[in-house]
Amino acid sequence: MSHADWKKGRDAVQPLDTKAAARASAHVDQLTKPLGSLGRLEKLAVQLAAITGEPAPAVAPPGILVFAADHGVASEGVSAYPQEVTAQMVANFAHGGAAINVFGRQIGALLHVVDVGVATDVDAPGVWSKKVRYGTASMLRKWAMSREEAEQSLQVGYESAEALFAEGAKLLIVGEMGIGNTTASSAMLAALTETEPDQLVGRGTGVCDEKWERKKAVVKEALALHQPNPADPLDVLAKVGGLEIGAMAGAIICAAARRVPVLLDGFISTVAALLAVRLCPAAADYLLAGHRSQEPGHAHVLATLGQEPLIDLGLRLGEGSGAAVAFPIVESATRMLREMATFASAGVSNR
Amino acid sequence: MSHADWKKGRDAVQPLDTKAAARASAHVDQLTKPLGSLGRLEKLAVQLAAITGEPAPAVAPPGILVFAADHGVASEGVSAYPQEVTAQMVANFAHGGAAINVFGRQIGALLHVVDVGVATDVDAPGVWSKKVRYGTASMLRKWAMSREEAEQSLQVGYESAEALFAEGAKLLIVGEMGIGNTTASSAMLAALTETEPDQLVGRGTGVCDEKWERKKAVVKEALALHQPNPADPLDVLAKVGGLEIGAMAGAIICAAARRVPVLLDGFISTVAALLAVRLCPAAADYLLAGHRSQEPGHAHVLATLGQEPLIDLGLRLGEGSGAAVAFPIVESATRMLREMATFASAGVSNR
Repeated sequence: MSHADWKKGRDAVQPLDTKAAARASAHVDQLTKPLGSLGRLEKLAVQLAAITGEPAPAVAPPGILVFAADHGVASEGVSAYPQEVTAQMVANFAHGGAAINVFGRQIGALLHVVDVGVATDVDAPGVWSKKVRYGTASMLRKWAMSREEAEQSLQVGYESAEALFAEGAKLLIVGEMGIGNTTASSAMLAALTETEPDQLVGRGTGVCDEKWERKKAVVKEALALHQPNPADPLDVLAKVGGLEIGAMAGAIICAAARRVPVLLDGFISTVAALLAVRLCPAAADYLLAGHRSQEPGHAHVLATLGQEPLIDLGLRLGEGSGAAVAFPIVESATRMLREMATFASAGVSNR
Repeated sequence: MSHADWKKGRDAVQPLDTKAAARASAHVDQLTKPLGSLGRLEKLAVQLAAITGEPAPAVAPPGILVFAADHGVASEGVSAYPQEVTAQMVANFAHGGAAINVFGRQIGALLHVVDVGVATDVDAPGVWSKKVRYGTASMLRKWAMSREEAEQSLQVGYESAEALFAEGAKLLIVGEMGIGNTTASSAMLAALTETEPDQLVGRGTGVCDEKWERKKAVVKEALALHQPNPADPLDVLAKVGGLEIGAMAGAIICAAARRVPVLLDGFISTVAALLAVRLCPAAADYLLAGHRSQEPGHAHVLATLGQEPLIDLGLRLGEGSGAAVAFPIVESATRMLREMATFASAGVSNR
């Protein structure tokens, strides 16, 4: 693979298939139920037809990519957990004990964990080793990564998604693990949308008031120091981003290029989606929001992308877990299209 | 079975198991995730432990009972569909083509359709024949059913749930089919909660403005004619209710007596749950609300029961379909409890 695959993918994204959408919509209105009575499921079904180009699309099996990387900014006292938890959780993923493993099994997902930048060597069974560097630098002192590394992280995501789709995944969920990554996501979101960080920085894994104030100050100082250019998404990623965030964006671009729907998780994956959309505006139409996270910046990035989540259960775990919990709703929409009888086929009187 | 089984069940409902709940809660806090980060799933897990008495409860396979019955009031011009649709949809259920069949298969449910009062003879494969009478009378002219028939409908639901639990169902979803049943549910809810019908009567399957006005007038006239006694739930059921609504209430009482959680569907099943709770207040603790329906009375009955739904997707189909779509969230809560690693077992550093 070349380092520029993600750019080819970016340029290959097509508009939605309005013909497939119209066929799906007409079929929905023939199914044995009062007109419009399956609400959001009906809209989802039509949207999935438009994305995939199939009047009766399938989303099973879904595929999950969990990208793991470390953040230099974790050393600045912004997280409730120590940096070594990233690598420990990668091992937990490898052994099937994390939330995303449990929910992934429930939905019959193909799941892979990708080391795109853990700070230590990872030796866990089955983990895809695609390390760009050993964690980012602290954005408070240096650029998080070089511009070339930022591009490499996109490429890692792109390649990983290609491999996942080759295995047969019909829908993409991107998840992440990286102590410090709500700080990086908040900084990226503030830069990309030119928004005051105080409105966006949340408690992440659950920091106390003191660390929360520190986290806000760190984001503001880093943005003042580096002045990332909102019109240049790679500049934002390199200066204040994260390797797993770049990889998630690359995977999303690949999905859009392959007409595979993307089901977003929470704050970090949605910031990655915004990065993808800034790099490739046509990718916006391939996104579905899974859940509304408790992290305050999530509402802002969802609104920026014009997305309304499927569920709102107060989740704030990451890993892709909220998207996995929401996935059965998406599957219900496709099963409605594919399996329900019509008024004519079932001999039921229409209104 | 005796006609009084449902009364024995009603008297046998036990309080929640606070010990099991405490054990589940302590376990949740040891799992490899930030404290509280699975939000509503964590509360659900603890609630399910309290209901079942098991610190690590299971809800799979779920069981679905779809009760079908006709309503004399359908002849008063209150529905968008003709009465024969009830029997046609029973045949559709029997052949697996309705929404509840599709979503039931998706969640691996045990599903049975029960004829508790369809207006015609039903000859569809697999349907449980437990007809109390051939449809109710029009509440605008007579009592919908006699008090004895009301009790029989409760007994049908109770017996059906017993049979379902004997097959191994670990959670109960009650659904319904009955042209005219949002009218009966609105009348029951207005009577039971002494509320102005105008606030409660919605468009059901999607009636036009004219029929909607007619529907409100019918409910008001029927209540004025029969003066159902809010303190006597059987009086309300007999005068303005429906056979499938009584059966749903009986099934819910059986679930509570067996410590089986009940996942409510939309407006009609939640009115049935209110009937069950008025007959058996201890049953209230065994209820979970699946989804928020578009029918305006649903918000009122949910608030009366103190219930907050899991999903809000603009559904208004009935049959149990919204509960089936919400079920995987309940299953996620139990899988979290049963399958996730703890900080200690996974060797992950806690905060």
